[in-house]
Amino acid sequence: MSGPAGGDGADRMARVALTCLAEPGNRAIWQLVQADGADATLERLLRGDIGEPALRAAVLARAAAVDPRRQAEAALQRGERLGARVVVPADPEWPTTVNALATLELEGGGRVNRDVRPPLCLWVRSGWPLDQAFARSVAVVGARAATNYGTHVTNDLGFGLAEREWTVVSGGAFGIDATAHRAALSAGGLTVAILACGIDRPYPMGNTAMFEQIADSGVLMSEWPPGAEPLRHRFLIRNRVIAAATAGTVIVEAAARSGAVQTMGRTIALNRRAMVVPGPVTSAMSVGCHELLRKHPEVTVVTGLPHVLDEVGKIGEYLAEVPRGRDRPHDGLDEESALVLEAMPRRGTADPQELAAKAGLGVRTVLRRLSLLEMAGLVVRRSNGVALARSPR
Amino acid sequence: MSGPAGGDGADRMARVALTCLAEPGNRAIWQLVQADGADATLERLLRGDIGEPALRAAVLARAAAVDPRRQAEAALQRGERLGARVVVPADPEWPTTVNALATLELEGGGRVNRDVRPPLCLWVRSGWPLDQAFARSVAVVGARAATNYGTHVTNDLGFGLAEREWTVVSGGAFGIDATAHRAALSAGGLTVAILACGIDRPYPMGNTAMFEQIADSGVLMSEWPPGAEPLRHRFLIRNRVIAAATAGTVIVEAAARSGAVQTMGRTIALNRRAMVVPGPVTSAMSVGCHELLRKHPEVTVVTGLPHVLDEVGKIGEYLAEVPRGRDRPHDGLDEESALVLEAMPRRGTADPQELAAKAGLGVRTVLRRLSLLEMAGLVVRRSNGVALARSPR
Repeated sequence: MSGPAGGDGADRMARVALTCLAEPGNRAIWQLVQADGADATLERLLRGDIGEPALRAAVLARAAAVDPRRQAEAALQRGERLGARVVVPADPEWPTTVNALATLELEGGGRVNRDVRPPLCLWVRSGWPLDQAFARSVAVVGARAATNYGTHVTNDLGFGLAEREWTVVSGGAFGIDATAHRAALSAGGLTVAILACGIDRPYPMGNTAMFEQIADSGVLMSEWPPGAEPLRHRFLIRNRVIAAATAGTVIVEAAARSGAVQTMGRTIALNRRAMVVPGPVTSAMSVGCHELLRKHPEVTVVTGLPHVLDEVGKIGEYLAEVPRGRDRPHDGLDEESALVLEAMPRRGTADPQELAAKAGLGVRTVLRRLSLLEMAGLVVRRSNGVALARSPR
Repeated sequence: MSGPAGGDGADRMARVALTCLAEPGNRAIWQLVQADGADATLERLLRGDIGEPALRAAVLARAAAVDPRRQAEAALQRGERLGARVVVPADPEWPTTVNALATLELEGGGRVNRDVRPPLCLWVRSGWPLDQAFARSVAVVGARAATNYGTHVTNDLGFGLAEREWTVVSGGAFGIDATAHRAALSAGGLTVAILACGIDRPYPMGNTAMFEQIADSGVLMSEWPPGAEPLRHRFLIRNRVIAAATAGTVIVEAAARSGAVQTMGRTIALNRRAMVVPGPVTSAMSVGCHELLRKHPEVTVVTGLPHVLDEVGKIGEYLAEVPRGRDRPHDGLDEESALVLEAMPRRGTADPQELAAKAGLGVRTVLRRLSLLEMAGLVVRRSNGVALARSPR
């Protein structure tokens, strides 16, 4: 296998090496990988053949310090010793929901809002295939300095979601994140911690025992290779994956302009369900929640589990219709087809022009991919456009 | 003076008598009064000349027990002894914002949602002209069984609004209502208690001293004549006036399906600013607030005074432009002209057909009234319709 969707060893290794060279989400690198494949992109970067001067300088500086191929090899060996695997888009278990990041455009400047492209690869410690783990999943995130109130509400939500077989996804921090994970674990449910550092150095250290439990019964996951440090900006880079991978995000408590508020911005832009638990207006830990409610009409007040299930329920049913087996029609989809599929409206029809605009592809490409998707039974043609097939396969 | 807009003694007396015969807001009676005047309507009701059998029976039963004219006369004498006055639509001080009830249509059956027409008259104990008292006013309402949290937030809001010369309007009940009044009083501000019983028998009794203070420095007001009892359904009838008279309503705490939630339904339907203070999802006293936020996109989260001022600010500026003096062009407006004026959009233009539909009048009537309003300098003709004159007078 070769080309952009290749799942061979060279592709996997190159993706890991690229993550060693630049932070995940980088727009230019992701575009090159889509066009020419990871291996060719790595070659090109190492030759310094890249338009953006800042990126070129950064890549060459890193490459001068350590050979990225050798670094990747060491990381893969280290991962193997940890019982970890690297998942790439060509793998059947790749969580395709993160592909929605391919077309995400955010307002506001800064790298963190520009470089929001899908992960190149995912490091995973888990007995679960990722696609199954995320099929029915809700992010529950919030303040590190949670109050008793926030902890109480998070505990109820995490436990209840897990009981109803929803995967709880969070970031592993103290406060709301850890409470959500622990509640899901105590209900015997599935929980996913998406880290902003290597999966071999869980951060914060205080949650180490919890991370081990999550790796055992749930999913411990990161875009960064083993050994990567939990740098401040990585949490903001990571947040796009939490938003994209799940059917919706609930914020229980958040201070003004906190990381959770930033995650919610991505949730809204990705058209996932955006949910906020209100709190006392006298609490600094609810200021972020109330600000979100005031600024974004898309954000819904949820006061408990029934409201959250209301929001994600329909999506859940839709996702639940997708067969879980390994041998699915869209497992082998090329990236363009996946983008077209991702651009399809959940309900109703779309025309190729709309899809092209949303997927960031040419109309001709969209038309070609639609024929393919139709043959695969994933979309159907209607008199007024194309629609998602209700029960794929 | 005579006719529908007559402000003579007969009109005033007839309006009081009509309130003794049927509950305020009655749609059929209000329509008759608009068409033929209060005196002729009273005559007609006493003859039993009314289409609705249930209303005819009720009116005749009440009239058989006590002569409504004699009852009205007694009420007026009693009012005089209390230092109260009766304000009718023809009076310069009539708060014209309540005229918006003329066209209010609510979903859901039942008398309380059907009989929401403007008051026929208002009993008042106050040194303030009503129009001045309501010119910059915000309703702050909520649960009787308020928590410490609700009381704390209400106190801040009531005090702050009063400090900024906004009138605080509420219902006089224990809990949020009384806290709002007391906070406004303690800031030396103006507060209005709109009662659901006679102004001589303040309810609840426990707030008697507060009501006396309100009558002294603010406004004690009711649609019902002195002696009227605080019957349960009267609170729901009264709520429409709280919603209509003010620029907006803030609910601080409310249980599910409470009176405050009902008031907010009217606030929304009247296109006034609808504001809710969120609270802990674990508090039964915030359930109504959160339900409103979930059900009505028109409802805004407010977490303190700045948010409330944001919401009502623009309306306040507009209202503040209305000259405060006694001798204003639209003081002497007949009801039809007032309806047309009320139907005018705050910004932009409207055409006579739209105004007719909104005011519930014929197009010819609207055209006649528009000429009058134009002469009075209250509206201006533009190429694409008529608009409110920016600075009346």
